[in-house]
Parts: sequence; C-alpha cells; structure tokens
Amino acid sequence: MSLPKQVTIVEVGPRDGFQNESGFIPTKQKIKITDQLSETGLRRIEATSFVHPKAIPQLADAAEVMAGIKRKEGIRYMALIPNVKGVERALQAGVKEINLVVSASESHNKSNLNMSVAESLKALKEVARIALDNGMRIRGSIATSFGCPFEGWVPPEKVDEIAREYLAMGVHEVCLADTVGMADPSQVSQMVSRFRDKLKDVEFSLHFHNTRGAGMANVLAAMLEGANIFDASICGLGGCPYAPGATGNIPTADMVHMLESMEIDTGVNLSKLIECARMVQDLLGRVLPGQVMKAGIVPWATKKQASS
Amino acid sequence: MSLPKQVTIVEVGPRDGFQNESGFIPTKQKIKITDQLSETGLRRIEATSFVHPKAIPQLADAAEVMAGIKRKEGIRYMALIPNVKGVERALQAGVKEINLVVSASESHNKSNLNMSVAESLKALKEVARIALDNGMRIRGSIATSFGCPFEGWVPPEKVDEIAREYLAMGVHEVCLADTVGMADPSQVSQMVSRFRDKLKDVEFSLHFHNTRGAGMANVLAAMLEGANIFDASICGLGGCPYAPGATGNIPTADMVHMLESMEIDTGVNLSKLIECARMVQDLLGRVLPGQVMKAGIVPWATKKQASS
Repeated sequence: MSLPKQVTIVEVGPRDGFQNESGFIPTKQKIKITDQLSETGLRRIEATSFVHPKAIPQLADAAEVMAGIKRKEGIRYMALIPNVKGVERALQAGVKEINLVVSASESHNKSNLNMSVAESLKALKEVARIALDNGMRIRGSIATSFGCPFEGWVPPEKVDEIAREYLAMGVHEVCLADTVGMADPSQVSQMVSRFRDKLKDVEFSLHFHNTRGAGMANVLAAMLEGANIFDASICGLGGCPYAPGATGNIPTADMVHMLESMEIDTGVNLSKLIECARMVQDLLGRVLPGQVMKAGIVPWATKKQASS
Repeated sequence: MSLPKQVTIVEVGPRDGFQNESGFIPTKQKIKITDQLSETGLRRIEATSFVHPKAIPQLADAAEVMAGIKRKEGIRYMALIPNVKGVERALQAGVKEINLVVSASESHNKSNLNMSVAESLKALKEVARIALDNGMRIRGSIATSFGCPFEGWVPPEKVDEIAREYLAMGVHEVCLADTVGMADPSQVSQMVSRFRDKLKDVEFSLHFHNTRGAGMANVLAAMLEGANIFDASICGLGGCPYAPGATGNIPTADMVHMLESMEIDTGVNLSKLIECARMVQDLLGRVLPGQVMKAGIVPWATKKQASS
C-alpha cells in the first residue's frame, strides 16, 4: 500500500461536536476542552461557529470561546462562518481562519441553510471578499459531497461546480464532506482521484462521518489516493439529525491510533489525546463512541512516540 | 483500487456473540435468530461451540441448537470445537464443519485454553483426525495473529508455524483472527500478502474485531491484497474480555452495507439482514453497536439487489 508519511488531523469536536449536543456546554468547559486539545500535538482545531445564536444556541458563546482559549503557537484555530454578519463577528473576535459551507445538493442546502445553493454561493462570495481583505485564511467545505439524505446520490459534477466557485473566491482549502456518512471506499477513491489535480493549488481535506461504520475505511481509501488532511472529533462527538442514534464524526483518538500504528505521523501524542477524550466523556457524563479511549493503546502505536 | 468481485461473510454472532453475553440466551431465541439469519442470503454461519458447558455456560445448549435450527440448503453451519470430547459431541449432533482454535501467542493460549500452544496443537491433531475420518470440513483459526493482549506484538513467524501445523493436519481453511482488535491496515496488508500464497490450497479467511475502530479499514486493506472471506457478527455482538466497554466483532450489516455499496457481491439481502439485526437488538434489550440498523441503507447499496 502506498500511503502518505504524514497526515494532518483537523479536530472539529468543539464545533461539529458541541453543536450536536442537546444541551449547552458551559463556556468554561468548552474552553477547558479546547485548551487541553491544544496540548495534544493537534495542529488544527475548529473551535466554534459564528452562526446566529438562534439557529445554533449551543454555540452562542463563539466570541467568548475565542477570547477565552489559549491560542497556542503553531496551531490553526478555525471558526465556521455562515454569512457576512458571522465574518464580521469573527473578525472582532480575532479569528484568523474561517470555514465556509454549502451543500452539493439543493435540498440539503435548503434544509440546512434555508437558501438555494446559488443564494449560498452569492452570500459566501461576499464573506470570502471580507475575509481576504482582512488576511484571513479560508476553507470552503462542500457538504453532502458523497450523498444527500433527501436526494440520495449526488452527481460529482455538482461538487465540481462548487469547488470551482470556491477556487474563484480565492479559498486556501477545499474540504469534501460526507455530512451524513453515506460514503463508501470505492466512491471515496474515485472522488479523491477526481479532485486531487483540480485542487492541487489549495489544501484538499476530507470530512468523514462514521454513521454507517465505514469512516475509517474511507480514510484509508482516501490516503491510498494521496489525501492527507482529515477531520475528526474528540470521542466521536457530533451526530447526524437524519440518523438518530447513529454515531457522528470519526473519533480523533481512533484515527490517530490507526494512523500511528501504520507509522503515519500525525504529530499527536496519543496518551495525552486519550486523557483529553476521557475528560470530555466525564464532563458530558455519558458513554461516547470513541473506542481507543475504552480499549487502550496497542504498544506499537506509540513506539515512535515513546522513543522520541 | 483492485477489489474482489465477491466476498463471503461468515456470520459468527451465534457463537462469538452469544458466548460473550453475560446472560444465557434461551435456546429458542438462539434458534429463532439463527433461522432468521439463514433467510438473509448468508452462506456461512458459526452456529455454536461444543466447549465444556462449565467453561462457557452460555453455549451449554450446543446440541439442542444444532438439532433445533433449520439447516438451509446451501448454507454451511460451523461449530467451534476445543477438544476430542467436543468433536464427538458435534458428530452426534450432525455437525459437518468445525472450527479449531489455537493462539499464536503462548500467554493468550494459556489464558484462553489453559494449555501451551504445543499441547493445543497436539490435542487438535487428534480432533482433526476424527473430523476427517468422519468427512467433516475443518477451519483452523489462529487467534491473536495480529497482536496479543499480554505479549503485544506477535511475530508473523509464530503464525506461520501454526498455519503449517494446520495444513499438515489437513484443514480445508485457515483463518487469521485479530482476537482483541489490535490490527491496523498496514499490518493486515503485509499479513495477507505473506499468507496468500502459503494458503493458496485452502480457503483463507480473516476474523477482525472493531475494538479500536479499525475493523472495516482492515477489511478494506485485506481485500486490496485479495482476501475475500471475512467474519462478522450480527449487530456487532461479541466483545473482548480484555477491553471492557469496547465493541467486539464487525457488525454484519455494516460490513454488507459497505461491500454492497462498493458493488462487491455478498449474496446478502440487506433489508432482511437489518430486519434480523433489529430483532436481535430487541430480543437482547439493549443498544448494540451496529450502525446501519440505526442509520438506514444508502440507496445505491441495494441498487443491484432491488433490480435483481
């Protein structure tokens, strides 16, 4: 197997995870978790979302979170931005990297953002202009790139179109998201090979969910085609409103464990990450999907880490 | 990706799953579940174990189960056999295919079977002789082939040795088992490529656990090296006494869903399998790990099935 030597993991628990919790996690706890994540060796963290507090009350404290966390040198903290108001709030909060989202399927975009895809892209164009004028880094995410809960199969040409729009806006990264966990490894392999060259001038990342158990297999399939930036969520926080009871994002410790076992460098200290995962599980007070935090580390997963 | 066109799934829930339940599942329920599994299109089912009832009281009803199930034409029903007494009981019960187990690591074999590896192999040789004399088909399983909870790394040479012993006994199949879910895709890739030729004259199967979340990625890695027989367990039943709280086997429906999405033929009807999984979850009365039974089927996973 031909695999990348190094993978960057984007920890999205503080955004994708916390926004899917039924209750509001106190701001202090959010800050504590994010600060502890910052000590694990992770290089990128999606810290919050500047969405309207009425739309996602769980993240109404975005500005307080950004002001409260210790921003560690070398870590890129990202915030999700839905509109112009959001990017203005993010600017005030000192955010340096933003994440834009639009769906590849009309009905999911309508359901998620209450706009058509064209309306979303128009709004994001203005957001991107403001962000670039202020020296922000931009990720453009394409939701439902691998399937839509309403429309089913999403033609890759739809994803192409949005990727082109993002590139025209001047984004620094494009992320294909399997928002509801419908992807399979063959599809992932084809999609990564389709987009690898189209996106060669920006960072190319993938956001998989484990909704149907195939998340880690999809990561493997993507790596075999050269992908090396993946989203994950502490303890597997995050879910899917369309699949009640199903798990959400790939648990970060499980991903790090698999990659480090394969001698793929993530930069993450597994022991510290598991300590953090167990703290999160304790704080939230229920059993969370992450497996390695329950089963423990296989000795050779940390062989290099112990010797370095 | 170069993948097999067809994969055989060995359903091990009625053995590996039921023996890991804390309580005794009534014989009638076991028979009902196995009979329903027989209607899904599965071609192989590990139905029970003829182990001493004191060692595993959960499966003390092995003979009653074998007598009670409807053995459907075209399905191979297998039973695990630990010793000569077991194979004699199995013969009386009309078992036609048996599964032998020995560990690749001394300390796991000692802990699991209270014998040294050499003692186990000696005993299994006699079991195999009796089985062959009576026209039974034999699978030889090698536990802890990918790691041991006590010894950690297991040298592949140890697995080689046992595989050679099995072949000398005249087995029809060798199964490498990741008994405690320590395998990673790189290791799996290397092991399958190492054993592919050595085992070319028998069936070569793999038994992965999802203890650390990498089970499905390991299946993908194995398929990329040509493997096409995998164990799975209904709802992900089964666990690991060394990793309390962690999940056990790969849930059958999740495996079938991923494979059928990739247009790999399993012969299994996903809708019927999910119906069966939901019945098992209801009967056991607690939430089980299987994801697809909660999240539902992606439309293209059953495209061929619907049209056939």
